Amino acid sequence: MYANSSEHNTGMNTTSNIRTDLALESQERFVRDNVEIHGVIVEQYDDTEREITVSRVVIESEKGAKAMGKPKGTYITLESPNLAVPDEDYHREVSVLLSKELQKLLPLELSGDCSVLVVGLGNRMVTADSLGPLVSDNLLITRHIVKEYGRLALDKSYVHEISSIVPGVMAQTGMETFEIIKGIIEKTCPDAMIAIDALAARSTKRLNRTIQLADTGIHPGSGVGNHRNMLSKESLGIPVIAIGVPTVVEAAAIIHDAHGDESITPHLNGMYVTPKDIDESVKRLSFTISEGINLALS
Amino acid sequence: MYANSSEHNTGMNTTSNIRTDLALESQERFVRDNVEIHGVIVEQYDDTEREITVSRVVIESEKGAKAMGKPKGTYITLESPNLAVPDEDYHREVSVLLSKELQKLLPLELSGDCSVLVVGLGNRMVTADSLGPLVSDNLLITRHIVKEYGRLALDKSYVHEISSIVPGVMAQTGMETFEIIKGIIEKTCPDAMIAIDALAARSTKRLNRTIQLADTGIHPGSGVGNHRNMLSKESLGIPVIAIGVPTVVEAAAIIHDAHGDESITPHLNGMYVTPKDIDESVKRLSFTISEGINLALS
Amino acid sequence: MYANSSEHNTGMNTTSNIRTDLALESQERFVRDNVEIHGVIVEQYDDTEREITVSRVVIESEKGAKAMGKPKGTYITLESPNLAVPDEDYHREVSVLLSKELQKLLPLELSGDCSVLVVGLGNRMVTADSLGPLVSDNLLITRHIVKEYGRLALDKSYVHEISSIVPGVMAQTGMETFEIIKGIIEKTCPDAMIAIDALAARSTKRLNRTIQLADTGIHPGSGVGNHRNMLSKESLGIPVIAIGVPTVVEAAAIIHDAHGDESITPHLNGMYVTPKDIDESVKRLSFTISEGINLALS
Amino acid sequence: MYANSSEHNTGMNTTSNIRTDLALESQERFVRDNVEIHGVIVEQYDDTEREITVSRVVIESEKGAKAMGKPKGTYITLESPNLAVPDEDYHREVSVLLSKELQKLLPLELSGDCSVLVVGLGNRMVTADSLGPLVSDNLLITRHIVKEYGRLALDKSYVHEISSIVPGVMAQTGMETFEIIKGIIEKTCPDAMIAIDALAARSTKRLNRTIQLADTGIHPGSGVGNHRNMLSKESLGIPVIAIGVPTVVEAAAIIHDAHGDESITPHLNGMYVTPKDIDESVKRLSFTISEGINLALS
Repeated sequence: MYANSSEHNTGMNTTSNIRTDLALESQERFVRDNVEIHGVIVEQYDDTEREITVSRVVIESEKGAKAMGKPKGTYITLESPNLAVPDEDYHREVSVLLSKELQKLLPLELSGDCSVLVVGLGNRMVTADSLGPLVSDNLLITRHIVKEYGRLALDKSYVHEISSIVPGVMAQTGMETFEIIKGIIEKTCPDAMIAIDALAARSTKRLNRTIQLADTGIHPGSGVGNHRNMLSKESLGIPVIAIGVPTVVEAAAIIHDAHGDESITPHLNGMYVTPKDIDESVKRLSFTISEGINLALS
Repeated sequence: MYANSSEHNTGMNTTSNIRTDLALESQERFVRDNVEIHGVIVEQYDDTEREITVSRVVIESEKGAKAMGKPKGTYITLESPNLAVPDEDYHREVSVLLSKELQKLLPLELSGDCSVLVVGLGNRMVTADSLGPLVSDNLLITRHIVKEYGRLALDKSYVHEISSIVPGVMAQTGMETFEIIKGIIEKTCPDAMIAIDALAARSTKRLNRTIQLADTGIHPGSGVGNHRNMLSKESLGIPVIAIGVPTVVEAAAIIHDAHGDESITPHLNGMYVTPKDIDESVKRLSFTISEGINLALS
Repeated sequence: MYANSSEHNTGMNTTSNIRTDLALESQERFVRDNVEIHGVIVEQYDDTEREITVSRVVIESEKGAKAMGKPKGTYITLESPNLAVPDEDYHREVSVLLSKELQKLLPLELSGDCSVLVVGLGNRMVTADSLGPLVSDNLLITRHIVKEYGRLALDKSYVHEISSIVPGVMAQTGMETFEIIKGIIEKTCPDAMIAIDALAARSTKRLNRTIQLADTGIHPGSGVGNHRNMLSKESLGIPVIAIGVPTVVEAAAIIHDAHGDESITPHLNGMYVTPKDIDESVKRLSFTISEGINLALS
Repeated sequence: MYANSSEHNTGMNTTSNIRTDLALESQERFVRDNVEIHGVIVEQYDDTEREITVSRVVIESEKGAKAMGKPKGTYITLESPNLAVPDEDYHREVSVLLSKELQKLLPLELSGDCSVLVVGLGNRMVTADSLGPLVSDNLLITRHIVKEYGRLALDKSYVHEISSIVPGVMAQTGMETFEIIKGIIEKTCPDAMIAIDALAARSTKRLNRTIQLADTGIHPGSGVGNHRNMLSKESLGIPVIAIGVPTVVEAAAIIHDAHGDESITPHLNGMYVTPKDIDESVKRLSFTISEGINLALS
């Protein structure tokens, strides 16, 4: 969920009023101001054939985390203008690339037999926030088959068990997402968790054209020090990989970008900038991500 | 979920191949055959003004349970031909009646401050099985408000906390519904649970015109002795009220009804009889039930 | 449809790059600049009890039309902050008010037996553009009943015949909306037409809180002089009333509002500002408008 | 639309109370009874590699039409058990086969530049009746591009113009589908029309596993002699190809099949037999048919 006031986001933003969930964008601010941040490593790689830029931001120290307004860990960003285009073959290539980056972050021994819980965060009823539920809808679910018939019942003999849940948002459930997920994990004992969520970016250029992976978990609530409901290795006891796509920019951010200040009028609160084709884009990207997860875990 | 092979149903049917989830229909078979069953009490009341028939079937003994093919407990059935009609005022009256019957079954001290978890069972993507998820969508969720701001933040000072979850079916989650619900209950500690599900009837006359309430829980799996995944007071530690509406009849059942035998051809497996307006009916009935629950818990 | 490049909008905007479909907002610009426009009459009325402001802008002359960037005619605007609130009773009051304003614009002799075609413009698959199709979904359609059984078959003996069509947008149909509607009108001969469409506003304060009625028809295409595909009395031969709700603001507009210029970066093209609850708001407003039309024509 | 009382079906059924829209099934009745019908030619071909049976029923004479209860013309049926299976590659093969059969029926000179209107019949809001609208949603629409930029603007230089409309059913529009389509055809002048509709079969074995093509048009209303609203070459002036998939069997039919009579109880009226996975099947088949049409016209 991408809202300031929302239950989930992937970072606490202490140094700026304008939110971004992308580590890449947090870091760009420092590049622009010509400030070097200790404890933050940035690498970039252009896949010119596929026209994809892969960036890796590693936040190594608490100091770097504070400056960036994001937890320590590794953030991978896949950026491509073509992600906004309805080209099925291209999206399949992105799924393959995504699956490889995901496998690097997932602490699985791939010849083994791990169990992964995929959590589709966000609100199915709000188009720009429906990425997580839609990804969950398209996954190849296998855990119940393995439990019932054994691993050999599946197409390939060595495969990870996949389970999935769409918990809903607090306004729908009355419960913290953390409570729901913690309960389910204690009963079903997965080895790792992948959480999918729609994100907020600062730049409209990145909307629906960027996929971020992070090994930091998902951090609900924007307040400083509110670690109570974080979905992370610390709180859940298993590695948590977050995958997100920015689907909105806060309305205030585009004023800031154009004019360098943030003198917004109050009625922009709760207003978001989205592309006109958001309904179609979110649907298409959810397929791309589902397929990436299916490939990574097969 | 109404299928024979499904994860959930409300009864194990050991004495007949043709399934019904309605205790009223199980009992009618004995009436037809002029057989008296010990340990089963049946009462009926006609609300002629509202054209609703309220039936109460109480299964008191294990012997009765075996004969009926249903767990011991109380089953209330509201039947009305008008439920199939899009009359908003009429549906509001049914909601009021439903709320009263629900309050009788719910072991709450209504002046107190209980917490109730409503579980919307079934598959949102399958029209005839989407009753549970749709009911959940329309509930007035309050638990998170009470947790954050206290009970006085709500419109009325004494109100029960409502939380809700749509767990999905096993093919979507890879997990037993029991595992999901048990985990959530352990973390959020509700005082009671209400489970909503689409049911299978024997008679097409009852489709979308009948609401069954039961204090027996929801009994997944049709095999005898498979108590492993039952959602009940025994397995979950809190009272479980089930509310259901029959939305389908197994195709085999209408042959049986017409001719008194069950010589069905195999290709009727997985085939269901539904009214043509099933999409609209399920939506309408989900509002009626949501409103009944909202009223019962306010 | 609210987009600059879209097939439909209700006005050609020749004097500013930033679009508004609301005559009230076109006029506010002149008020701000303290410019008087000849041929434009503005009246305003506050319904303090219901907290609704009703404005009437009448463009009387071609000169006024040119200054305003809108066709000659009468534009009624209902504004209320409460329209964004999910209060069913309040929305019913707005429906009643809307029905009365609609009756004033509709050139029907209400005791007679007119036939009205309601056209739900826009794209059902794009949330912010789905207002028209959703309004159409909730109308009380009567034309076929009157044709088959006569007017006495309806609840009230004197009622207008209502028919409705959701033509889709050009990218879905490959046809101009004008071609579709003109063909249908020639075959079914309604006495008047009501066209519903999502609009673009300039101010986010008006999003989902404003209903505009106009007797000018719907004017597709923003180019000057492109009258080819206008849905109007001139082109269709019957009165055309337009009803619209602003659901988006062009991203460029909020920068302009904040800073008084329009120096937008190209990547804001195709970007729109919407409230987070757009999915729910559009659904709710479509009920309010459907009910207003149902009341006006019964 | 598959209902007896519905506006559309593809055949008038004068010789039996149990409806089938499949010419193949009408003919099977005579085979079973060992009756030869003059003026009806039947051919069958098994594509063993793809496991598809292609049948061709040609009704040559009025006498044959009367016996069959279907208009004169050619009916092609593609049958495959695998159509019910979610195998993307297989569905692509069926699309190719469908496109070839469609090209044979379409009286187009394929090197020319024809314009084809695709009409998605049925009710989008009723799952089992939503095939036509869903096919329309997935078509590659080109007419507006050719009209605006010329044929060379498309990927291939020689391509047919495709336009499409989802007219809705009479309860939604208040208009006969014939009125809507006739009006649109007069304004947009296509060279041919393809109508897509959900059908009723007699045998549950054929549900969602059969595609019927016919060059006879679509025949609304089941009454004898009601030719008023037929969508056909006679009434519309252009060739009309019908494509349909049986999605339901009337409940009465399965009793008849099991016992050889039709002694149905009245409450089976308006009841239909569908497979449990109807929601998913209709969606999948709509893609297969859209792709077949896209291929046939490119």
